[in-house]
Amino acid sequence: MTNGNHTLNEILTQANAWEDALQAFYAMSARIQSAWQALQPQQVVFTGCGSTHYLSQTAAELFQSLTSVPSRAYPASEIALYPQSVLTDPAHTLLIAVSRSGATTETIQAIKRFEQAGGAAVWSITCYPNSPIAQSSALILLAEAGQEESVAQTRSFASMLVLAQALAALLGAEDVLQLKQLPNLGRQLIAETESQMKTLGSDAGLERFFFLGSGLQYGIANEAMLKMKEMSLSHSEAFHFMEFRHGPMSMVNQKALVVGLLSQQTHRYEQKVLSEMKTLGGRILSLTTEEPADGSAYHITLPKNLPAWAMPALYLPPLQLLAYYRAVSKGLNPDNPRNLTAVVYLDETEFEA
Amino acid sequence: MTNGNHTLNEILTQANAWEDALQAFYAMSARIQSAWQALQPQQVVFTGCGSTHYLSQTAAELFQSLTSVPSRAYPASEIALYPQSVLTDPAHTLLIAVSRSGATTETIQAIKRFEQAGGAAVWSITCYPNSPIAQSSALILLAEAGQEESVAQTRSFASMLVLAQALAALLGAEDVLQLKQLPNLGRQLIAETESQMKTLGSDAGLERFFFLGSGLQYGIANEAMLKMKEMSLSHSEAFHFMEFRHGPMSMVNQKALVVGLLSQQTHRYEQKVLSEMKTLGGRILSLTTEEPADGSAYHITLPKNLPAWAMPALYLPPLQLLAYYRAVSKGLNPDNPRNLTAVVYLDETEFEA
Repeated sequence: MTNGNHTLNEILTQANAWEDALQAFYAMSARIQSAWQALQPQQVVFTGCGSTHYLSQTAAELFQSLTSVPSRAYPASEIALYPQSVLTDPAHTLLIAVSRSGATTETIQAIKRFEQAGGAAVWSITCYPNSPIAQSSALILLAEAGQEESVAQTRSFASMLVLAQALAALLGAEDVLQLKQLPNLGRQLIAETESQMKTLGSDAGLERFFFLGSGLQYGIANEAMLKMKEMSLSHSEAFHFMEFRHGPMSMVNQKALVVGLLSQQTHRYEQKVLSEMKTLGGRILSLTTEEPADGSAYHITLPKNLPAWAMPALYLPPLQLLAYYRAVSKGLNPDNPRNLTAVVYLDETEFEA
Repeated sequence: MTNGNHTLNEILTQANAWEDALQAFYAMSARIQSAWQALQPQQVVFTGCGSTHYLSQTAAELFQSLTSVPSRAYPASEIALYPQSVLTDPAHTLLIAVSRSGATTETIQAIKRFEQAGGAAVWSITCYPNSPIAQSSALILLAEAGQEESVAQTRSFASMLVLAQALAALLGAEDVLQLKQLPNLGRQLIAETESQMKTLGSDAGLERFFFLGSGLQYGIANEAMLKMKEMSLSHSEAFHFMEFRHGPMSMVNQKALVVGLLSQQTHRYEQKVLSEMKTLGGRILSLTTEEPADGSAYHITLPKNLPAWAMPALYLPPLQLLAYYRAVSKGLNPDNPRNLTAVVYLDETEFEA
């Protein structure tokens, strides 16, 4: 049994995998553009399970904001169980399936339902080119260097997210080459934040974690919540930033860490929420491109020179490290979370009824 | 200071408020149909904050499944902060704002942004006919008898949900009069389940609560989570039913109650999840129209003779009672949850920038 060596290594080396994924993406960007032109879908549905559902949330939000094509995320199980409710116009819908392994049963079933309904096309984002999901896709965005040994997705998640960001930017006519800055910025951020995240992750005075993000950062907040939960078995939840006031903040006390994933365009609204949570006794970790506000005990400065669509992946490494060090300090092995396996395989015949 | 008397009274009398709301609805159904015919929107967006965001999730899912018009829920804050990302075709979009008070700042701001973007029409579902949100709506669905003294929404939520169900059924050409059965079924369910919920709510051996629902029941699971959190300050989370396997189930142990809101069409997939959670040591409460499965320590039988679209409100009363009795047994006052107020008012000028 390892003791989290895989996970730590995967977190620390992820920027190389982003670079690799981007290189593969740039090489096929003309093909992507012509496939998109040929399709001209009226809806885009992103799907995945667990982490890749959360990735899909950010991807769909970004895709819709850059392309203006209505885009949304559904957990694969919801498509598999309720295809007729979910797919309102399959003949003009592009399904983008996100799966690290490319082998998740529910995602395969979602694709089947989509095809049975006459869906226009399936594209995929995955780490495995020969997987069933990749093989059933008209277009495969590949993050091969994102493959990992651990159960919890870190490097794979961020690499696939970078691909989703690149896809939205390309089809939304943004300068997708700006993403070339990401790997170095990611490396720098890891170097700058690791020791702070180790300290905070080892703080036994914390017992509950709330991750808040709006817009593009909502899916990232969910993923940070899931990492904390899977690796460290800690009470962790995620909410749309401003939604936190509408009930969930009743749980804030001195043992709560409220993690704000602030967005460039909306940080002044979000900063107010964090200040209020500090007044309620919560401890605050903020990730923002702005000056540290006085309410934040802990602060991570994100690079300011990037467009909003390039930002989401950068929030991940520090929050992955936070979960990792929390797990280690609790004596848990982050490589093999309790109750979990790397891929959820279900009996496919169950779905065939 | 009361000790939860308001909340208990509001939960126990809610079926009368449903009846009242339905009566008002039936009286205006011709008007609703002609307004819908005149609009013929290409998208429907439901919006609210906290509880009413969760109500919007179920309403949007139901609306889309019955009318085939793409429908989705956004927290009001997301519309207020990112109107251009959220609204892809405002001129052909119907916004349905849900607000108990009709005075929530973010929802008012969402309506303003929608109108500034040239939105087609605003309808509302509220308990207060003279509220700002009602007054700015072309059509008001009113649950006046849903008004309440408590901070946490129970009677108001269920009454507004019944209206949303009626609206979807009417415009989806279902027999909306079938909802006339709901109030009596609700009364019966309350009578049948109150003592069991009191016992379970008073069980000090439980420390974490997971609410699982798919399709229409996902929003209801979220609302049950919020009730448990607000009233009883307990660790509670909600997930899409099958998503629970993809990470969150790492938190299941002997002190966990996994509450399954099973759906008629998909209960056999969902029942398997519950059985697995029992194997992991979790205790199980299932709400289902089917025979109690052997995995469930606690079971609530829902009426079997109703169509799926009529069901969502029926899951609420037992789960509200569970949260209420948990709060009382912890010595908390459910009428006035910690840190919370009945309406979240923000400085409107903040949003005017």
